[in-house]
Amino acid sequence: MRKIRMGMVGGGEGAFIGAIHRMAAALDGQIELVCGAFSADPQRSLRSGRALFLDPQRCYPDYQTLFTAEAQLPLGQRMDFVAIVTPNHLHLPVACMALESGFDVMSDKPATLSLEECRYLAATVEKTGRLYGLTHTYTGYPLVKEARALVAVGRLGAVQKVVVEYSQGWLAAPASVENKQAAWRLDPARAGLSCCMGDIGVHAANLVEYVCTDRLQTICAHLTASLPDRLLDDEGTVLFNTAKGTNGVLIASQVCVGEENELRLRVYGDKASLEWRQQEPNSLWLKFADAPAQRVRAGVGELSALAQANLRTPSGHPEGYIEAFANHYRNFAGQIRANLSHRNASDSERDVPDITDALSGMAFIEAVVQASKSPQKWHRLAASKNTQSHIEQGVVS
Amino acid sequence: MRKIRMGMVGGGEGAFIGAIHRMAAALDGQIELVCGAFSADPQRSLRSGRALFLDPQRCYPDYQTLFTAEAQLPLGQRMDFVAIVTPNHLHLPVACMALESGFDVMSDKPATLSLEECRYLAATVEKTGRLYGLTHTYTGYPLVKEARALVAVGRLGAVQKVVVEYSQGWLAAPASVENKQAAWRLDPARAGLSCCMGDIGVHAANLVEYVCTDRLQTICAHLTASLPDRLLDDEGTVLFNTAKGTNGVLIASQVCVGEENELRLRVYGDKASLEWRQQEPNSLWLKFADAPAQRVRAGVGELSALAQANLRTPSGHPEGYIEAFANHYRNFAGQIRANLSHRNASDSERDVPDITDALSGMAFIEAVVQASKSPQKWHRLAASKNTQSHIEQGVVS
Amino acid sequence: MRKIRMGMVGGGEGAFIGAIHRMAAALDGQIELVCGAFSADPQRSLRSGRALFLDPQRCYPDYQTLFTAEAQLPLGQRMDFVAIVTPNHLHLPVACMALESGFDVMSDKPATLSLEECRYLAATVEKTGRLYGLTHTYTGYPLVKEARALVAVGRLGAVQKVVVEYSQGWLAAPASVENKQAAWRLDPARAGLSCCMGDIGVHAANLVEYVCTDRLQTICAHLTASLPDRLLDDEGTVLFNTAKGTNGVLIASQVCVGEENELRLRVYGDKASLEWRQQEPNSLWLKFADAPAQRVRAGVGELSALAQANLRTPSGHPEGYIEAFANHYRNFAGQIRANLSHRNASDSERDVPDITDALSGMAFIEAVVQASKSPQKWHRLAASKNTQSHIEQGVVS
Amino acid sequence: MRKIRMGMVGGGEGAFIGAIHRMAAALDGQIELVCGAFSADPQRSLRSGRALFLDPQRCYPDYQTLFTAEAQLPLGQRMDFVAIVTPNHLHLPVACMALESGFDVMSDKPATLSLEECRYLAATVEKTGRLYGLTHTYTGYPLVKEARALVAVGRLGAVQKVVVEYSQGWLAAPASVENKQAAWRLDPARAGLSCCMGDIGVHAANLVEYVCTDRLQTICAHLTASLPDRLLDDEGTVLFNTAKGTNGVLIASQVCVGEENELRLRVYGDKASLEWRQQEPNSLWLKFADAPAQRVRAGVGELSALAQANLRTPSGHPEGYIEAFANHYRNFAGQIRANLSHRNASDSERDVPDITDALSGMAFIEAVVQASKSPQKWHRLAASKNTQSHIEQGVVS
Repeated sequence: MRKIRMGMVGGGEGAFIGAIHRMAAALDGQIELVCGAFSADPQRSLRSGRALFLDPQRCYPDYQTLFTAEAQLPLGQRMDFVAIVTPNHLHLPVACMALESGFDVMSDKPATLSLEECRYLAATVEKTGRLYGLTHTYTGYPLVKEARALVAVGRLGAVQKVVVEYSQGWLAAPASVENKQAAWRLDPARAGLSCCMGDIGVHAANLVEYVCTDRLQTICAHLTASLPDRLLDDEGTVLFNTAKGTNGVLIASQVCVGEENELRLRVYGDKASLEWRQQEPNSLWLKFADAPAQRVRAGVGELSALAQANLRTPSGHPEGYIEAFANHYRNFAGQIRANLSHRNASDSERDVPDITDALSGMAFIEAVVQASKSPQKWHRLAASKNTQSHIEQGVVS
Repeated sequence: MRKIRMGMVGGGEGAFIGAIHRMAAALDGQIELVCGAFSADPQRSLRSGRALFLDPQRCYPDYQTLFTAEAQLPLGQRMDFVAIVTPNHLHLPVACMALESGFDVMSDKPATLSLEECRYLAATVEKTGRLYGLTHTYTGYPLVKEARALVAVGRLGAVQKVVVEYSQGWLAAPASVENKQAAWRLDPARAGLSCCMGDIGVHAANLVEYVCTDRLQTICAHLTASLPDRLLDDEGTVLFNTAKGTNGVLIASQVCVGEENELRLRVYGDKASLEWRQQEPNSLWLKFADAPAQRVRAGVGELSALAQANLRTPSGHPEGYIEAFANHYRNFAGQIRANLSHRNASDSERDVPDITDALSGMAFIEAVVQASKSPQKWHRLAASKNTQSHIEQGVVS
Repeated sequence: MRKIRMGMVGGGEGAFIGAIHRMAAALDGQIELVCGAFSADPQRSLRSGRALFLDPQRCYPDYQTLFTAEAQLPLGQRMDFVAIVTPNHLHLPVACMALESGFDVMSDKPATLSLEECRYLAATVEKTGRLYGLTHTYTGYPLVKEARALVAVGRLGAVQKVVVEYSQGWLAAPASVENKQAAWRLDPARAGLSCCMGDIGVHAANLVEYVCTDRLQTICAHLTASLPDRLLDDEGTVLFNTAKGTNGVLIASQVCVGEENELRLRVYGDKASLEWRQQEPNSLWLKFADAPAQRVRAGVGELSALAQANLRTPSGHPEGYIEAFANHYRNFAGQIRANLSHRNASDSERDVPDITDALSGMAFIEAVVQASKSPQKWHRLAASKNTQSHIEQGVVS
Repeated sequence: MRKIRMGMVGGGEGAFIGAIHRMAAALDGQIELVCGAFSADPQRSLRSGRALFLDPQRCYPDYQTLFTAEAQLPLGQRMDFVAIVTPNHLHLPVACMALESGFDVMSDKPATLSLEECRYLAATVEKTGRLYGLTHTYTGYPLVKEARALVAVGRLGAVQKVVVEYSQGWLAAPASVENKQAAWRLDPARAGLSCCMGDIGVHAANLVEYVCTDRLQTICAHLTASLPDRLLDDEGTVLFNTAKGTNGVLIASQVCVGEENELRLRVYGDKASLEWRQQEPNSLWLKFADAPAQRVRAGVGELSALAQANLRTPSGHPEGYIEAFANHYRNFAGQIRANLSHRNASDSERDVPDITDALSGMAFIEAVVQASKSPQKWHRLAASKNTQSHIEQGVVS
């Protein structure tokens, strides 16, 4: 038994999401960071790696060198998987080279710049037989897993309506030159087809699909850019119908002044409904027609096996965003361990967003951008080829 | 000085909204109920009036008799105005006869069954010169008035986006035969073009228009009926743009199991945003990009003149739905008093939904029903002829 | 059938609580205000009465004249009961003269200046056989009645601990000369032995006794005055044990800057616990050891008969302070009606704070003031002579 | 530069708090676990260490062997400090042997079984010159640090009153034999003088002292055991006055059915007040007499330097209990690094509960137990000898 060894591409000094990935990977003591190509600038990559107490030999000047060099290390030393935390436009080439070089991949989202790229990525995953995970963080929360279980066992009855909203305010003001986060997200060359829908709308869509074990199928979309010089959307609303016939509304915005990271999901069935807010993630509301609403709490009473498996503390000791993120990492590490031990991964280990979610997300982004330009209301999402994902399998125990 | 005298049409034994109107009218000691035609059944009307301690002579068998008989009473006795609390299809004939008979009218909403009817009503109001009020209750809350004032004085900056939602769950189950409330609301002959949008969606639209001193202009709508035998919508979503260029989403539903009366408004400006929920009406949230959110409370600190004028208790002593309703009644009674005294009504007295709001509401209902049937996204609301309402005047002090 | 006729002593122009009493009495259309002695200044009394549309003949210059004159009016005209809304030191003489003159009494609290006075009052109530009600407003809330019912039927198991808190901030700053509310409350001659405990602590104690159908028995108290020139307490903490053996803490303060009217009760049993906050009075929390907490809501699901009888609106339409107050008035009017009809009052009609609560409250105030001065921890409340109140009877249906 | 090396005593398989300490230590990538004596059972210790991927050579059979063996390792390998996560009665001997063997100590709380033991510990700390940290977790939250800063800079004005409460429900039922957590906490031999006050009351007292930069001085206490066979308190209330003259109430309980881990602090000044709840740790309320309350949020607007230094995520991405815990570990590692580099620790590095807090905590526990047995109200805490702690220094930047 040993720790799973992780490399990282991107996430050098000053980057936000790289540090989150590292904390998430470290939290449970299952994964150790052993190498990285943290920046396109070799000196900065080295400096970043040293600050992380890495062996300078394994602070690589670029990702190509990283994969080549690590692949030549003896099995007992070389990394098991790479975490990709670059801007969007590099996700595809880095992931493909990793997979081709024999490494599993955990990628930040969105998976690629376009659905076409994503199909290429999916083919590469299939061809190489490597593991691919995608950090749709919010499905890592224990009570989101509980929500999925409650829907799956019919606690809500037939699901009829979904309202999901993801509102932020940080792009409301004109982006300053120094704000790197804003700059690349609003640049079509680096962000892809969409800013708001690609950055956060796709999280909201993924959350719906995960909780309802369902897929968005037809949409009506209206995206806008609130400042005149913006080339990509910074907010939008999407009406949708799912494969199972549920009716829904998705609202996403990065220009709602005063909102922090307001991801909120409501699912209405014909027997009961549920509500969850990311900013208070340890509570989940169950509401009924003729009985008091119940506040399901992390750690209180009987929760589903998947929710339970993703909790670390007793009730009343709040877990947060990093813990949700860490759940994906720990579960993904479990998949790697299962492969190393030639056993099947458990339900809990497989409960990580995968290449099918990647395809679904890219199909969503592409569809809403196109639908928004159309004077017609309704449009159909491109069908995803691969349907063998954990979503369709309805893994709930 | 004397109390203003009110008659009532509808609201007999067992009716819900009639009792609310009576409590609202009684609360401030400015209005006394003196007569009524409480039911189409004369015996029931008499019984209802006796239970309200009325003179049996003034418990009329039908509204026609009421108006005829009251109009013949000496000035010192006869009623000043009538409250109309019948099902929707009677609003127009009762209101018109009242106006033609020389009585002011306070009507439950929606004003009529169709926009065409409403234009006829508006013409009658204009012709007779009588007062017409409409109980869009929710604009009676002090903190809704505060919200309107905050928008008007620019506290939010330029308004960019509005999200309004009105969710209930009481129509989720198939309506039982005994449920009169459900029965008439789902019957096109008595309810008009729409159930959900006509019953509650129009409240949400009115709330947006009041708080933003603006009017909905173009819409994209999707209405659905969740049970197969329903002839009218029981939920829907409306995207809209306003005359001032604000982008918005309106969600309304009567089939969201577990929601009680969840009317919630958010207005986002480029400097700040606000949020208000009817179920906790004594708090109003003001949110900022880079500073702590503020919880504005009824009775705490400096509020606008209109908010202040509509509060009865010190801070921390909650006021609710009946008080909001009573504000409209007391302010309307003020208008009547102003007419009796040959003076102009004050800003606060004029702050009651009026015939222009009625027209705007009917235009909204008609437009969303038509737009929902169209495969095209965007549709324009019928222009309201009369723009001299308090909304356009931007009465805020 | 007719409305019950009310007179009022105190509550002239500018008074706060008098207006609340009038709104509460008017709300349900069961009571009409017919006369009053609104001020010690006859001109002001007359002016106040005229503004309330009263017959000037029945706007009396003082309470003695009021009782004498009304007692001489024919039965069909004269008032049925008097509402006493003067400063505390007048409660006793006004109440006693009313009772002796044959009128029922609804008094603001505390009932008298001292326990001795209150015993005299109780003897007068007994001697005259008239009705006496006390406006401990907070037990008028429907969900407080529900809490009482839940405790009574054993839903919490054996009650073990109570935490009650009543915090306000309005006396934190030195009282300005113009603030009449502050001035008399801090003046021993007009307020009695205590400011904070007499004004709000006694409400908290009454709430505990009502919800638990129990009485405070032994206490340990620590009262303080936060400004050097104050002669009476403005905050304090009381540890207590009840007759049934429950352990509790009562915290009251009028100098907690930023608190509005924060009355909050928690009752812990060995099976479950409950929580209620006056500032969000339409929710009641039920918590369990191993199951989700439940949010009991006014109007949702099955509530106890007493709670149901004191609700006016459907769920989600908030009722507030005035409605709670009005419940006491309407129920008290029901007692008067029962007497007029020579029938027994119903459980719901009798559910109004009475002379036994008055005695219990005065015993509480006197005991905490004495206990606070003692270096010993524990002290016993003076036993109340009369135990035939609704508290002891455990009226819950 | 290298990671700081940690050993652990206690925290083997099945232990709760040991795992939390390990996650907290791992989170920021500054500390690596290198060895441990995880159980008094050598086999269990070895098994526990292997599951943590440790070198079996460094999974010691007992703490004595651990310290002896580690002290003989070369500087480049041996651990820097030990984390003590045993039951309370072992804290003293393990800590003293660690200190005497040249290792810094991070101990779970309470520091020892009695104040006398704690004084011996403090003398050992002083004599050896080693670092000593105590995991009063709750002061690790960023917004608790913000609260301290707000009090220190006078934002509340003069602090007048504090209300702190720590309620749990998990000891309400008779402790089952299998519940090890309950068993040792209720056993005087292993827990010390007190159960509830020693386990959680002392956290509440520490929170007050930290936020107010003050010390409890006189107390009135009432502790109870809710089940007949309990030898130690399971709940209690403490009235207190602080060195600076603030008046306060501390309520702690482990038998409040339905409460999870409800630690809630309110501090009232003469200008403003603040409120913080551990279960929603990313919000801090600031309330004012005549202005809207403000909800200070982690990551929004300008926070104090100490709060800022202890945040990892952008606003709206909740951090929780493990992150608060990790702040103490990372800051403590900073102190060790400062020593290794012969520099002074920064304000932020020194911001960890220390031996003075340990003394203050033990003085609190001892005093409340004694005061509870006394019929007299007020008692004085034993003066702590050492006043050079960060509390007295008022480190706020």
